[in-house]
Amino acid sequence: MPEAVILRWGHRSRDERLTTHVALTARALGASGIILTDVRDEKIKKTIDGVVTDWGGPFFFRMGTPWKMVLKKWRAKGDMVVHLTAYGENIQTSDVIQRIKTTEKDVLVIVGSRKVPSEFFSSEISDFNVAVGNQPHSECSSLAVFLDKFFEGNELERRFKKARLQIVPQKHGKKVVSKSKV
Amino acid sequence: MPEAVILRWGHRSRDERLTTHVALTARALGASGIILTDVRDEKIKKTIDGVVTDWGGPFFFRMGTPWKMVLKKWRAKGDMVVHLTAYGENIQTSDVIQRIKTTEKDVLVIVGSRKVPSEFFSSEISDFNVAVGNQPHSECSSLAVFLDKFFEGNELERRFKKARLQIVPQKHGKKVVSKSKV
Repeated sequence: MPEAVILRWGHRSRDERLTTHVALTARALGASGIILTDVRDEKIKKTIDGVVTDWGGPFFFRMGTPWKMVLKKWRAKGDMVVHLTAYGENIQTSDVIQRIKTTEKDVLVIVGSRKVPSEFFSSEISDFNVAVGNQPHSECSSLAVFLDKFFEGNELERRFKKARLQIVPQKHGKKVVSKSKV
Repeated sequence: MPEAVILRWGHRSRDERLTTHVALTARALGASGIILTDVRDEKIKKTIDGVVTDWGGPFFFRMGTPWKMVLKKWRAKGDMVVHLTAYGENIQTSDVIQRIKTTEKDVLVIVGSRKVPSEFFSSEISDFNVAVGNQPHSECSSLAVFLDKFFEGNELERRFKKARLQIVPQKHGKKVVSKSKV
């Protein structure tokens, strides 16, 4: 099963909550981890690491590496790069998701936050530019729908390891069980 | 085709960007509109109305009505209420989405932001409690995946009306055309 790793580009301190949501989305929708490039944000790292401690993993949060270096290392492995953008190929009306999956390679998913450099759209950077609908959008939502289609929904039944807490789904009400670490 | 309307509960001024993302998600993923209950936020309304002016609609943004009144009016129509929560029935492992769709009714989708009142989970408020995975999550992402499954992906090829701007999907690069209003 190919893996997905998220590259979060363009984070500024005012984006703290949004980037936290992008990271929670990445984890909940089956990505292996997220790399906050170019900058560091200890508060988000603490939040996400805390979620992994309580709710399980594996899921990594890394930060500070320049995006070009992350790309270079990824390229050296021969894996794919997907750039999520409203300007790209429509995930519903094109065959882009099939073409990505056919490669059977791991994907690095670039998620911008503010205006991204135009080189992100070029074939030197991104093998695929994918649009979750060609409309103004939220990067959290685009990432969620992309991962859900990439993993074909199976990510939503993933069992996280070493979880302290686990939800028992209910039609009405809330149920959470605490578990000893396994 | 049943419609979806979003009820955003618990918005505070610090949530401005997140609620904007929830509203953008609602529009991009096929909802008819969003109601920000209990409070008003003129800045978000201006942003979303601007998106509709540029990129088309129909899509409404309403605000300020108490949530109980929104619910009461919705119930009076006999339509369904879906509460998105990590504690609910798993959208992937249960048949909840089929049960919702079988009703063939419009859905009001409750999206919380902070800790929601426990009554939201009760059958008096929500016909269905739906979890997009039973993990800590982003409300933007949960909404996106829920709407994508509710509309079966068709929402991503929707043509918006009276759009001034339209993206022409590209494998690489960006292309936007300006149109006169139709």
